Amino acid sequence: MRVIVVGGTGTIGSAVVAALSARHEVVVAGRKTRAVSVDLAFPESIRAMFQTVGKFDAVVSAAGQAKFGSLDDLTDADYLFSFSNKLMGQANLVRIGRQFIADGGSLTLTTGVLGQEPIKGSASISLVNAGLEGFVRAAALELPRGIRVNVVSPPWVTETLVARKMDPSPGMSAARVAQAYLASVEGTMTGQTLDPRTLDIR
Amino acid sequence: MRVIVVGGTGTIGSAVVAALSARHEVVVAGRKTRAVSVDLAFPESIRAMFQTVGKFDAVVSAAGQAKFGSLDDLTDADYLFSFSNKLMGQANLVRIGRQFIADGGSLTLTTGVLGQEPIKGSASISLVNAGLEGFVRAAALELPRGIRVNVVSPPWVTETLVARKMDPSPGMSAARVAQAYLASVEGTMTGQTLDPRTLDIR
Repeated sequence: MRVIVVGGTGTIGSAVVAALSARHEVVVAGRKTRAVSVDLAFPESIRAMFQTVGKFDAVVSAAGQAKFGSLDDLTDADYLFSFSNKLMGQANLVRIGRQFIADGGSLTLTTGVLGQEPIKGSASISLVNAGLEGFVRAAALELPRGIRVNVVSPPWVTETLVARKMDPSPGMSAARVAQAYLASVEGTMTGQTLDPRTLDIR
Repeated sequence: MRVIVVGGTGTIGSAVVAALSARHEVVVAGRKTRAVSVDLAFPESIRAMFQTVGKFDAVVSAAGQAKFGSLDDLTDADYLFSFSNKLMGQANLVRIGRQFIADGGSLTLTTGVLGQEPIKGSASISLVNAGLEGFVRAAALELPRGIRVNVVSPPWVTETLVARKMDPSPGMSAARVAQAYLASVEGTMTGQTLDPRTLDIR
């Protein structure tokens, strides 16, 4: 398959690229990726990416930003930014990508554990993650030509915790998280939220 | 208790008002309510409502609009409208209301069954409902002074199905749905999504 990985240079994205590359052709895209540049905040940037890449069978997104902050600190603008970027940016990959993707193709997006298991400071992120999972459940019902859409909800990633000098013990390695994306790309499920902690990954 | 019911003239809202009135003082608010007018789309309107009402112990919202339409038909503006109105409008009741509400008070918002059980055409509504449930789970962790927040996710309401000339058999009466709001107002739970179908309502 030919697979576009948006955010393919990030911690999870690069692990997904590594996992996919063993048996697929991978096109890496991102905000800072010179070859195929895309900014999820702008629908026209998403459309341009698909037009640049040409034929493809799958899209994986490990991209999208949302603001962390207390209820006191989060502003109206923070909520709107998070909605426009991580939520609608990835939803727009589906809304626009379905017009370009091959028959039977798949789209796999990213949320995160805070959607269902919040912590203090995650109000905006929990909103965005849970909202995107709701969109994916619904959009899957309307995709034509056998196109599938799923979302992976990663737990804390060990490499991220280490980079932030936090306790890495609750983390899962990016390589192991990447297997959930592989399952979505190569499997048959649609409309699902995949949790790498409970997915049966061999 | 003194309870503000936003959207208190709608199908669910008026049933909530009826249920609460037996043992609480109810203040009805809404877009078309002359006494206490509020439009959830505008934070300053929400703030003005709380300033007008004075002291209160609970807020129930059975208000907020979101767009129904196919993936083909829903526009960027439709998603933004739904986010700003049903999702952030109700989130803003929490963000602003927590500054005015009495110690130990509660806020109870409304999503709907499409958040977790989508149908064709519900992409925007499913996004908004699930996103608001994510916000409520997270916001509950940060509310001070014993303040609680929950959300009721009503199934199809019989009266609504009848009004739309649809098959009423899968519906639940508004009076029965209202009992879930009563449980949230009078109970001790917080951060929960209450489903009137599975809640133990006597």
